[in-house]
Amino acid sequence: MKLKHLIESQQLDKEFIFEIFKMTDKLRISTEKPLKEKILATLFYEPSTRTRLSFESAMIKLGGNVISTENAKEFSSAVKGESIEDTIRITSSYANIIVLRHFEEGSAKIAASVSSVPVINAGDGSGQHPTQALLDIYTIWKEIGRSDNITVAMVGDLKNGRTIRSLCYLLGKFENIKIIFIAPENLSIKDDIKEYLKKHNVKFEEQTELNKFLGSADIVYMTRIQKERMTKEEYDKSKGKYIITEDNLKLMRENSRLMHPLPHVEEIQLPINIEQTDKRIAYFRQAENGLYIRMALLSYLLE
Amino acid sequence: MKLKHLIESQQLDKEFIFEIFKMTDKLRISTEKPLKEKILATLFYEPSTRTRLSFESAMIKLGGNVISTENAKEFSSAVKGESIEDTIRITSSYANIIVLRHFEEGSAKIAASVSSVPVINAGDGSGQHPTQALLDIYTIWKEIGRSDNITVAMVGDLKNGRTIRSLCYLLGKFENIKIIFIAPENLSIKDDIKEYLKKHNVKFEEQTELNKFLGSADIVYMTRIQKERMTKEEYDKSKGKYIITEDNLKLMRENSRLMHPLPHVEEIQLPINIEQTDKRIAYFRQAENGLYIRMALLSYLLE
Amino acid sequence: MKLKHLIESQQLDKEFIFEIFKMTDKLRISTEKPLKEKILATLFYEPSTRTRLSFESAMIKLGGNVISTENAKEFSSAVKGESIEDTIRITSSYANIIVLRHFEEGSAKIAASVSSVPVINAGDGSGQHPTQALLDIYTIWKEIGRSDNITVAMVGDLKNGRTIRSLCYLLGKFENIKIIFIAPENLSIKDDIKEYLKKHNVKFEEQTELNKFLGSADIVYMTRIQKERMTKEEYDKSKGKYIITEDNLKLMRENSRLMHPLPHVEEIQLPINIEQTDKRIAYFRQAENGLYIRMALLSYLLE
Repeated sequence: MKLKHLIESQQLDKEFIFEIFKMTDKLRISTEKPLKEKILATLFYEPSTRTRLSFESAMIKLGGNVISTENAKEFSSAVKGESIEDTIRITSSYANIIVLRHFEEGSAKIAASVSSVPVINAGDGSGQHPTQALLDIYTIWKEIGRSDNITVAMVGDLKNGRTIRSLCYLLGKFENIKIIFIAPENLSIKDDIKEYLKKHNVKFEEQTELNKFLGSADIVYMTRIQKERMTKEEYDKSKGKYIITEDNLKLMRENSRLMHPLPHVEEIQLPINIEQTDKRIAYFRQAENGLYIRMALLSYLLE
Repeated sequence: MKLKHLIESQQLDKEFIFEIFKMTDKLRISTEKPLKEKILATLFYEPSTRTRLSFESAMIKLGGNVISTENAKEFSSAVKGESIEDTIRITSSYANIIVLRHFEEGSAKIAASVSSVPVINAGDGSGQHPTQALLDIYTIWKEIGRSDNITVAMVGDLKNGRTIRSLCYLLGKFENIKIIFIAPENLSIKDDIKEYLKKHNVKFEEQTELNKFLGSADIVYMTRIQKERMTKEEYDKSKGKYIITEDNLKLMRENSRLMHPLPHVEEIQLPINIEQTDKRIAYFRQAENGLYIRMALLSYLLE
Repeated sequence: MKLKHLIESQQLDKEFIFEIFKMTDKLRISTEKPLKEKILATLFYEPSTRTRLSFESAMIKLGGNVISTENAKEFSSAVKGESIEDTIRITSSYANIIVLRHFEEGSAKIAASVSSVPVINAGDGSGQHPTQALLDIYTIWKEIGRSDNITVAMVGDLKNGRTIRSLCYLLGKFENIKIIFIAPENLSIKDDIKEYLKKHNVKFEEQTELNKFLGSADIVYMTRIQKERMTKEEYDKSKGKYIITEDNLKLMRENSRLMHPLPHVEEIQLPINIEQTDKRIAYFRQAENGLYIRMALLSYLLE
């Protein structure tokens, strides 16, 4: 059944995922402009310039057009008090597809329920960010050559990372996956994810040390400690605990890859020349893949 | 005589209005791109995302291009102190048409006086918002089948509503119009509008009760109490006074229509299924009409 | 050797400058769309609506597309702490050229060092604004008919004016230039510029009075006192010291030109009819030239 909206990773099955991968590979070298008559509205209730620009660039590369706001809160300001439902109803008469970023979990689902055009969730509160998960799994598949039979080490703030959650949901769709969660005790992966993984036969273990496991993974997926979501005390406990340097990079397997959803801060401390030459450093290619995955999603939903 | 700028409702005569209606009807089904080489600058001194996006979508649907700011205050910040005249002179060398939203009444007129390209007033302070009035009268004409011989109930904050003002000016151009103003005493329609209506032979009466008059109107035009423009005491007096619910909706005539400039808050409390199925609920179609009316205005002014 | 990035005025030689002038003259009357497949990213860490809109209009007139943010600070907020290098690396996978405005001197150079696509500096802190200098010298050449053998009076806040600095660097490339600096003592031109001019055989003198020298210059280049960069005491000393009025305008030579980077405030007090009819008033043409110069630069760097 054809997907109308893209709201959360759980919606996606393996067949859909590989269809999107195939379209992505095709679109990265295509010069066709199939969306010439179409308008994308990027409706951002909180700024996320990187995500917004990648969707807008994707739309333009497909020949489409963009209307945009990072000021969507004003639509429904405390003073005026418009509901998200009404905002979406009206925006869907101006545009052919809506990319929504919202600060409240569940908003994307509500938006989809009233929209007359497709809605893509570009992050809703501490909920999901399914296009990020799709570009992550695409990057793994592209870089390693497979998306089954892999070991992924996920490192850092696993409690607060929306990216980590969405990626775990997607990995649950594949065969023989093993995840090594590496986090400070106060930032470990939440129980609902562990339940989900058990149910989907994903093996996982929880660890607190980094270097010991760098050699065991096909993918090392680093994340930022989300300072803004914890107390100073908590932050000080975990700050600087997991860092990739030129030294411990050597512990990683030759055919493994280092990924990161970016922005990275202190957790990656590699000299520029290493970043530019070591083929294991995949995070800039990962960011670029976001553009092509989003081209594929826009194409798919607007066809 | 061809209009160069669109600044206030009083400028418009019946002949122009019907020319725009005809263009609007044509453009809503047209796929032509007459404005391919043209650039619209949306110059917003205060954010109004809905209005801005509808102008931008209209321009793009006509094949045109957009440059845009919701940050126009920065052009003429207190620190730098540039005059609106200079801003417009410069912007009119970058674009073929300017849509201006400004916080000061009269700004649009000043802008038009120095601009080398057409200027459309998209709201200036407590002044006017003529494209809103045009889309309102177009909606009436479309929904009821006529724009003469109608009774309009205007409900809510009639004192502060820019929309109400502009619509009254436009209604003054038509024959055999009757307006029932329904407002709390502290928010009743201003004297200058009443003078204007008398001069233009528009019958009107002032009331304070809603339900009693719901059955007397072809159009019930609800508006939001503009909390931000009054004291808390005043707000508490009028808050919740006029509400359309499933119950009193039944009092409206079968062929009447419920309009609202949106965003609505508590003054409309209808379940979604009623909003989607009762043909009298016209406010989402009204918002969509804004898109087509603005396409017609851009076409007209750029021809 | 072909320029890859445009970072500072010192990079430019006379040959390049005249190549750009030639392209500018061609593009102002051309209807070709050579940049149809290209995307410009305007990455503004501080708002500068005028500069941003002129780049975006230039890109669109050449058939290109734009993605844009005035919110680029969010990319690298204190909380998230991303480096400018990473931001540029990622943006350069979304766009074919980047126009960067940043609050820190030297940022444009850093950006260029890691970008895979051309970078144009649209102002970095108290550093440079080379496209402004290019449009200034183009305006001189267009208006006076030459860019050698000229006397330029620079008036106002010469200490803080980024425009003044960039223009001095460019004038150093030409023959037989004389500059009359006219500034209050506390806002006089800095020593590094004087050193540079001496080294490049540009004659200059420093004065404090305006009217006495209005008749000696081919170009009178007025600037705004940058109130926001000084103490109130300093401002009061220089405020209102240099003003062009209908009266002292008469002191200017018949074939001279009055320029200003805009926005102007009190330092130019000319009635609109004089601004519109006296051919010596060049600052609106100067602003318009910005559009064409930027078209030429985008074309050049993307070819």
